[in-house]
Amino acid sequence: PPVFDPSEHPHRRYNPLLREYVLVSPHRMKRPWLGQVEPPAADTLPQYDPKCYLCPGNSRSEGAVLPQYTETYTFANDYPALLAGPLPPAPPAPHPLLITEPVLGGCDVVIFHPRHDYTLARLTVGEIEKVVVEWTRVFVQRGMQEGVKYVQVFENKGAIMGCSNPHPHGQVWSMSSIPQIPSVELRNLVKYSLSPPPDPPSGAPRGDKGKPCMLCEYAHFEKGAGERVVLEEGPWVALVPWWAVWPFEVMLLPTHRHISSLLDLTPDERTSLSTAISRLTKRYDNLFSCSFAYSMGVHQRPTPMQLDDEGEAAHLHLHFDPPLLRSATVKKFLVGFELMAEAQRDLTPEQAAKRMRELSEVHYLDLMD
Amino acid sequence: PPVFDPSEHPHRRYNPLLREYVLVSPHRMKRPWLGQVEPPAADTLPQYDPKCYLCPGNSRSEGAVLPQYTETYTFANDYPALLAGPLPPAPPAPHPLLITEPVLGGCDVVIFHPRHDYTLARLTVGEIEKVVVEWTRVFVQRGMQEGVKYVQVFENKGAIMGCSNPHPHGQVWSMSSIPQIPSVELRNLVKYSLSPPPDPPSGAPRGDKGKPCMLCEYAHFEKGAGERVVLEEGPWVALVPWWAVWPFEVMLLPTHRHISSLLDLTPDERTSLSTAISRLTKRYDNLFSCSFAYSMGVHQRPTPMQLDDEGEAAHLHLHFDPPLLRSATVKKFLVGFELMAEAQRDLTPEQAAKRMRELSEVHYLDLMD
Ligand SMILES: O=P(O)(O)O[C@H]1O[C@H](CO)[C@@H](O)[C@H](O)[C@H]1O
Ligand SMILES: O=P(O)(O)O[C@H]1O[C@H](CO)[C@@H](O)[C@H](O)[C@H]1O
Repeated sequence: PPVFDPSEHPHRRYNPLLREYVLVSPHRMKRPWLGQVEPPAADTLPQYDPKCYLCPGNSRSEGAVLPQYTETYTFANDYPALLAGPLPPAPPAPHPLLITEPVLGGCDVVIFHPRHDYTLARLTVGEIEKVVVEWTRVFVQRGMQEGVKYVQVFENKGAIMGCSNPHPHGQVWSMSSIPQIPSVELRNLVKYSLSPPPDPPSGAPRGDKGKPCMLCEYAHFEKGAGERVVLEEGPWVALVPWWAVWPFEVMLLPTHRHISSLLDLTPDERTSLSTAISRLTKRYDNLFSCSFAYSMGVHQRPTPMQLDDEGEAAHLHLHFDPPLLRSATVKKFLVGFELMAEAQRDLTPEQAAKRMRELSEVHYLDLMD
Repeated sequence: PPVFDPSEHPHRRYNPLLREYVLVSPHRMKRPWLGQVEPPAADTLPQYDPKCYLCPGNSRSEGAVLPQYTETYTFANDYPALLAGPLPPAPPAPHPLLITEPVLGGCDVVIFHPRHDYTLARLTVGEIEKVVVEWTRVFVQRGMQEGVKYVQVFENKGAIMGCSNPHPHGQVWSMSSIPQIPSVELRNLVKYSLSPPPDPPSGAPRGDKGKPCMLCEYAHFEKGAGERVVLEEGPWVALVPWWAVWPFEVMLLPTHRHISSLLDLTPDERTSLSTAISRLTKRYDNLFSCSFAYSMGVHQRPTPMQLDDEGEAAHLHLHFDPPLLRSATVKKFLVGFELMAEAQRDLTPEQAAKRMRELSEVHYLDLMD
């Protein structure tokens, strides 16, 4: 048989953060697409939309009126998926296999900017930094509330990602349990820190008390290898993970030291993170010359601040999961085989990173001005 | 605090098959939907479409011509995600965290019926039975191929599920590794069979050599409880699992004895399975009076036939994951929080099952004739 070529031969890659496999079928990019195309995202939105429930001075869904805010603005979601406690105790399980866990928490909406037609890619670094500060504030405030164990900061961007309003905003859901995915990540980070594989020391930064950190090690290696790197900004690296599922999935994380949460950032680190977000989202928009849809999430340590294994092992990182694959209107469907058997991708992470590296950081709409 | 009410209070449920949690937020059904609506699925398709690459006598994508088949017809996918071996060995890992596993296998397309405008819901039980027989044949044939460890039968139905052609068909992907999700299910089924929780014997059927089976036990309990049952057909029960993620997710499985694969079905069991599929898909279409989109998959034992723990612990079941939530055009988006933190659902499994129980089994299009 010929020599293995990851851009030709189907293979599986392992995600050590989730202990899951993804099937990579690079040769499959050649098939014609005959399926559903998405409506293109509207390029021209008004700066202010009188019908938008997030624009300054407008009425929110439940009738409350938004102030004439001028930068970020946070309020509790009118239709929260989580409610404040105290909650009644769960009834006894009807069968040992049928387990219920009551859960409390809260849901916040963080508006990024008053302008209806902006997105992170169109904000200045200073404006993005205000968003990062606001995420940090909500993380701290919610994380101090009675019973809250995890604060999930995320953004759904774009109608094809289920976002019901283009006004630039994200959400923060706080919960009395560590949610499924961060909990698996934390478990695997803890395992790695307590019994790392017997590797030669790589020179990567280490975690608290000198413990090894899987993500410090991984980011350090990728920075050196370069193949999957999209951009570097000061201590931050944005890369398409070895195990990426979404075509242009990116992980953004610090490489120079172990950082467990947004609260641990120095002012300089926060500024460079904001610059990295700005540069990355501009590249995303330039990829298919459209306002690029994605789900973004910040993974960090559980709350409240505790000197336990999980708090120590957590390494701050942001995931970007964008659905588009071929163009502004053709997305990757994670269905059928993916739902029933295993995540599957077509182009390789290396191919995706290369395409993203070649893009300009001047936003395509600014070129048209 | 008041008494816990699962249809009012947010809570988490545990999925023992995957060892994962899902967040249930029933009160959230009340929020207005302002997001993307899907184009309605075309109700009126021609019986034969000269441009369809699956209709009898037409050209397939790569130019091969389909015969004038009259029932089911199977061929190897022209753009397979998996290729036959032998594959070159993987190169050494560039870093211990970056693991590649070469994979071989094959991808088949199973056409259910010559009529372009049909779906499983519009076929007779006899015609569905031919599909089940064909799945079984492909399972056996692929499962005997050198190196194949798992045969994943599935169907993507509907454009919103990434299906590029409405002609009734499914796929079968065979792989030299057990894919991620069946592999986790099998691991947990094996664990249960080897060291079951200390429950009082429930009278549920048992697995091979008298070992307990989680799914035999679960199906037996649900049949008795009734609350989450959608329909029963002979030994089969279709239910909305306690831990369902998708709004109208259904699991279809046998309750009367431990069955590890399609090949182990008696002719009677196969007929009643076909009737159950017919009844279930008719109810699905009637829910929102549309051709109901879903991803469906058959989970069974690995291949080749082996008398090992996994083969013994496997209990045949079908998953149906449909995306629609509120109407023919409003789906549930599993994005943002779901991608970053934890699966989340709005209506409860009990509410979903009740709605599905109340539906007619006369297809809405037959009523219009
Ligand atoms: O093979 P198809 O039908 O063209 O493709 C569809 O099903 C595949 C298997 O579930 C998915 O990987 C693709 O994303 C989807 O578009
Ligand atoms: O809260 P929103 O933006 O209305 O809703 C959106 O984000 C939520 C959190 O990711 C998802 O559960 C919903 O399915 C999605 O439509």
